[in-house]
Amino acid sequence: MNKIITIGREFGSGGRELGRKIAEKLGWEFYDKEIITEIAKRTEFSEHYIHEVLENNPHELFPITVGHTFTFVDTYALQRKQVVFSEQENTIKQMAENSNCVIVGRCSDYILRESSPVKVFVYSDMQSKVNRCREREEVDHLSDKKLIKTIKKIDKNRARYYEFYTGHRWGDKLNYDLMVNTSKGDLDAIAESICKLLK
Amino acid sequence: MNKIITIGREFGSGGRELGRKIAEKLGWEFYDKEIITEIAKRTEFSEHYIHEVLENNPHELFPITVGHTFTFVDTYALQRKQVVFSEQENTIKQMAENSNCVIVGRCSDYILRESSPVKVFVYSDMQSKVNRCREREEVDHLSDKKLIKTIKKIDKNRARYYEFYTGHRWGDKLNYDLMVNTSKGDLDAIAESICKLLK
Repeated sequence: MNKIITIGREFGSGGRELGRKIAEKLGWEFYDKEIITEIAKRTEFSEHYIHEVLENNPHELFPITVGHTFTFVDTYALQRKQVVFSEQENTIKQMAENSNCVIVGRCSDYILRESSPVKVFVYSDMQSKVNRCREREEVDHLSDKKLIKTIKKIDKNRARYYEFYTGHRWGDKLNYDLMVNTSKGDLDAIAESICKLLK
Repeated sequence: MNKIITIGREFGSGGRELGRKIAEKLGWEFYDKEIITEIAKRTEFSEHYIHEVLENNPHELFPITVGHTFTFVDTYALQRKQVVFSEQENTIKQMAENSNCVIVGRCSDYILRESSPVKVFVYSDMQSKVNRCREREEVDHLSDKKLIKTIKKIDKNRARYYEFYTGHRWGDKLNYDLMVNTSKGDLDAIAESICKLLK
């Protein structure tokens, strides 16, 4: 069975960069946005549409109330979304079957639970998230207050997505093997350390 | 400045053993119960008394309500406890000044906050805590239900102690650099990994 590291991460914590570093050090495949590209190849949908479905309000994917209210649901839209979601699951499973890999986000820890991945959660304090966002994204037009609001909103969406899909609480330490605080920022040292754990 | 690792840990999570392994691998000093022995040397108190003061109801150390109720407080007993507490702080600071070291529990992350220790929190799921307790302690006379109750009670005390003394929430991920789940139990691999982080 291949070795797999899944990375859950708070927005701005550097989780994606950490995942890439780990994959590079280990010589493993790295999957993040590649998953969306792959779903686009496998379906008739654009990357933009897939991104929208997977990142925004995934809880709208499934009708929870059936009966009378169900008649108002756009079942065609719903079916398309379910195709995307199901294809994401297939894609992730196949990637994990192909080779050792690091996979960022997308409930991959849950999707791959039978393959016993090493499950990492990456977090940091708010100030270092703000700093990291300012370094890496074009957010000069946002005040700190607005940036913090945006960061919180994105994480709230991630938590809803995760909880809806897995039934577990996002960021709850018992769901992970290792929780890493990147506030002090030495991603290289952290990556080295996690690699060591896998050897 | 010396390098320091502090270890907070849930009861039964193997945190102490993990700390010892890390110290051995790095060739650093390891402090756990040694702290109590050291306080005994520095004061007129027995190790048994010091242990009682530090482990049980430390929140009784300081009178929060003054005024009428204060007249009922045994101020002599209180003073003795405060001596123990203050001597613990001095001892830990001095140990950290003497050499690189790993220190388990005793709010050492907070006491040594100006020395920027690497702060680790060790946790695991309840079943693995129960298993670990049965392997290492003489608890055959306890049913699983009673053992779980005991484990929870000890951790509740630790949490109260920590929160009372530091003002922070025990086990809150933002207070730590690394949170390690030992449910799968390979303490040796985890110790290796943490050592790597320090190099």
